[in-house]
Amino acid sequence: MRVQELIRDIPDFPKPGILFADITPVLAHPEAFDEVIMAMSGLIQMQGVNKILGVESRGFIFGAPVAQALGLPFIPVRKPGKLPADTIKVEYTLEYGADALEIHTDALEAGDRVAIVDDLLATGGTVEAACRLVEGQGAHVGATVFMIELSALGGREKLAPRPVYSLIQRS
Amino acid sequence: MRVQELIRDIPDFPKPGILFADITPVLAHPEAFDEVIMAMSGLIQMQGVNKILGVESRGFIFGAPVAQALGLPFIPVRKPGKLPADTIKVEYTLEYGADALEIHTDALEAGDRVAIVDDLLATGGTVEAACRLVEGQGAHVGATVFMIELSALGGREKLAPRPVYSLIQRS
Repeated sequence: MRVQELIRDIPDFPKPGILFADITPVLAHPEAFDEVIMAMSGLIQMQGVNKILGVESRGFIFGAPVAQALGLPFIPVRKPGKLPADTIKVEYTLEYGADALEIHTDALEAGDRVAIVDDLLATGGTVEAACRLVEGQGAHVGATVFMIELSALGGREKLAPRPVYSLIQRS
Repeated sequence: MRVQELIRDIPDFPKPGILFADITPVLAHPEAFDEVIMAMSGLIQMQGVNKILGVESRGFIFGAPVAQALGLPFIPVRKPGKLPADTIKVEYTLEYGADALEIHTDALEAGDRVAIVDDLLATGGTVEAACRLVEGQGAHVGATVFMIELSALGGREKLAPRPVYSLIQRS
């Protein structure tokens, strides 16, 4: 079965009017999940990055296997108060309100080239914040990589000029 | 470097008096992370399980690569309101207050044998709740597998008689 056919549309989640792309059937299908991890890893390998970053929580499901496949360090970015050592924080705005992300201050060094991996690119707000965390440490975003891109929501433009790669594009 | 030496003790996190085992240096060390995933996968392979379950968020970092290594489905268990399709919920008590976990109702079938993977076994409350979610669906917990077990906190007893495997034991 093609990966595309495993993505399940859930109407009115998390709120009325939103059609949510449920990726859990892909996770439950080992061949499909492996295809996704291998495709992401192949794209990233061409970018010459030296670290893989994943944003809590679904970014962990894709980022950790990609890091393992490439033999690269995996760096978690988390919601405030979750990472135990010294952190730096970045804030970002959501449709209603604001949120923040943190990274350990010793996770990146100036000159690192990082790939950020996530399941879905929608408006791009969360990953754009993660990019700012990376760049604030003097590191470079070599690639942002997504299983699904919802093209109509402008995430690619929000992340520009950082490189955006996606495996499945939907309008 | 041995995996044990990469675990970093952070005093007074998340609150005064707690010595927190920070596993992020293991994630940042590809050979060590690979050793952990391979050791977990080897233990699980002996248990004849057919699905791997990970609890949000750090359980995702270990569970997804283990599932990929074994070619088994990965099932996420999440905090309430995060999983988009129909869910069942289980509540559990913490030191102060209560929390809850959810699983998709179609994630497990009666007769499934599940391994639950997480980074750390402390008091075992969260994983015991995940076990009840599995058992409530008529499935069986074939193994619970942890990178680190804090033996003095009684998690193994809390999870009994379910099988508990850990790679690194600390008092």
